[in-house]
Amino acid sequence: MKIRPLHDRVVVRRKEEEQATAGGIILPGAAAEKPNQGEVVAVGNGRVLDNGETRPLAVKEGDVVVFGKYSGSNTIEVDGEELLILNESEIYGVLEA
Amino acid sequence: MKIRPLHDRVVVRRKEEEQATAGGIILPGAAAEKPNQGEVVAVGNGRVLDNGETRPLAVKEGDVVVFGKYSGSNTIEVDGEELLILNESEIYGVLEA
Amino acid sequence: MKIRPLHDRVVVRRKEEEQATAGGIILPGAAAEKPNQGEVVAVGNGRVLDNGETRPLAVKEGDVVVFGKYSGSNTIEVDGEELLILNESEIYGVLEA
Amino acid sequence: MKIRPLHDRVVVRRKEEEQATAGGIILPGAAAEKPNQGEVVAVGNGRVLDNGETRPLAVKEGDVVVFGKYSGSNTIEVDGEELLILNESEIYGVLEA
Amino acid sequence: MKIRPLHDRVVVRRKEEEQATAGGIILPGAAAEKPNQGEVVAVGNGRVLDNGETRPLAVKEGDVVVFGKYSGSNTIEVDGEELLILNESEIYGVLEA
Amino acid sequence: MKIRPLHDRVVVRRKEEEQATAGGIILPGAAAEKPNQGEVVAVGNGRVLDNGETRPLAVKEGDVVVFGKYSGSNTIEVDGEELLILNESEIYGVLEA
Amino acid sequence: MKIRPLHDRVVVRRKEEEQATAGGIILPGAAAEKPNQGEVVAVGNGRVLDNGETRPLAVKEGDVVVFGKYSGSNTIEVDGEELLILNESEIYGVLEA
Repeated sequence: MKIRPLHDRVVVRRKEEEQATAGGIILPGAAAEKPNQGEVVAVGNGRVLDNGETRPLAVKEGDVVVFGKYSGSNTIEVDGEELLILNESEIYGVLEA
Repeated sequence: MKIRPLHDRVVVRRKEEEQATAGGIILPGAAAEKPNQGEVVAVGNGRVLDNGETRPLAVKEGDVVVFGKYSGSNTIEVDGEELLILNESEIYGVLEA
Repeated sequence: MKIRPLHDRVVVRRKEEEQATAGGIILPGAAAEKPNQGEVVAVGNGRVLDNGETRPLAVKEGDVVVFGKYSGSNTIEVDGEELLILNESEIYGVLEA
Repeated sequence: MKIRPLHDRVVVRRKEEEQATAGGIILPGAAAEKPNQGEVVAVGNGRVLDNGETRPLAVKEGDVVVFGKYSGSNTIEVDGEELLILNESEIYGVLEA
Repeated sequence: MKIRPLHDRVVVRRKEEEQATAGGIILPGAAAEKPNQGEVVAVGNGRVLDNGETRPLAVKEGDVVVFGKYSGSNTIEVDGEELLILNESEIYGVLEA
Repeated sequence: MKIRPLHDRVVVRRKEEEQATAGGIILPGAAAEKPNQGEVVAVGNGRVLDNGETRPLAVKEGDVVVFGKYSGSNTIEVDGEELLILNESEIYGVLEA
Repeated sequence: MKIRPLHDRVVVRRKEEEQATAGGIILPGAAAEKPNQGEVVAVGNGRVLDNGETRPLAVKEGDVVVFGKYSGSNTIEVDGEELLILNESEIYGVLEA
């Protein structure tokens, strides 16, 4: 099963929290901050503008995106996996190699 | 009797709460969270844009939709059944097999 | 005497509260919730859009409409009868047989 | 002296409070609620839309209009008479015989 | 020295408080309410609309205007005289003989 | 070094506080209110309207402008001098001889 | 690794705090205020206007920009370096030699 987001919504799989420090020390879950990065899993058709046009989104499936620390509280569960629902406007940018 | 929603409103039949866990244990109603999913029962003609156009909605009757945990408090009773009234903008996306 | 509502306003005669339960028990007024349904008595000419067009309303005289529980507090008295003044945007939909 | 209201403003002479009940009992001023009705004394040229057009108002001099209970607090005194200044958007509709 | 207001701003010389009642009794300054009327001293070129047009103002130099009781707190001093700065939208209308 | 303000921003050198009264008495800095006047040092290219046009500003370098008493808290330091950053909409008008 | 900001976002490397006064006295980190200046590292494609056009930003890579003291709290870490994410509207102007 998969989700088809509407309009300017983006489904993101949050990057997993690093479980250990560089030196190999295991951090308990509560102490580690959730990374505000993730991989785009699905994107909507685009934002509907006031003039009736639909503007395609500026991110695509597979992009690694960065978002604000107050974003990412809207989640859905698909096939047992928790995914984030973001508006494109909550995404700061795309990380590129 | 049925309801014809106006403009960008969507009538949704909320997915029933699962009454038992996988192992068959019955959960009392209060403990189970209401699922934020449901089936679209009826959709409005579309959103009226500032340029006078009506944009048809991106969901249709029969779609299984996911919505936010703070949506779904507007309800109506039709033929003894409680249905939700959502704005299309409250719908995150459509679940597809 | 009658009222001609302006623009996107709709005059609605609220459905009377049911005074008795199916079994014939009379409920005191205070206990019965006011039904959020009513019959459209008059409609305005339409909503004026930013492009200067007037969009006719999506409800008409005689329609039975459903509205939110926080709507319906604006009332006027015409010929001794209390009627509701709603904006079209407060109306969820039209009930159809 | 008279006032020429600007744009979408409407000058209204509030209907006088009824000083006596049907049976002839005089109500003290404080007990009587001010009627939310009045006669249109003057109207502005119209509302300026975002596209530059001026849309003439939907009420005219002499109309008897109904407005909300929270409207009518802006007043001016012209030749010793207190008149209300309303925006057209505060007017629910026009009473017709 | 004079001030050229920008866009939809209007410079107004507030009508002087009447210092005496009809019967010639002098009211102390604190007891007299400031009149919400004044003479237009200068007007801006007009309001810039979203479509790029500039709409000239509906008041002109010399007009006697009425404004709301919560307007008129923005003042400037020009050649030792205190003048009000209003937005055109704060002006109710123009008094005409 | 100089600053090129963006869009509808205006850089203003605030008029110096008068250090002495007409009679030559020196006022301590704290007692003197900062004048809400200043000279325009630089202006942005203009405000971008919703239709895509850029509207040039209505003030230019060298203009003496008046602004509201709650404006002028955004400052930058250029070559050791404190300058104000205003939006054009915060400027009431231009003083002319 | 680098970040490609979306739309009207700008990535800025904040100017380093000066560690010493002109006289060579070292200020502890806590006492020094963070400079509201920085170098533009990357810019988005532009702001999407309501008419569907994309307006390119008015700043470019390498520009030294000034921003408000309440901006600059959104940060991301790229290759171990903390960078600011600003909206173009938060930028006052560009410093030029």
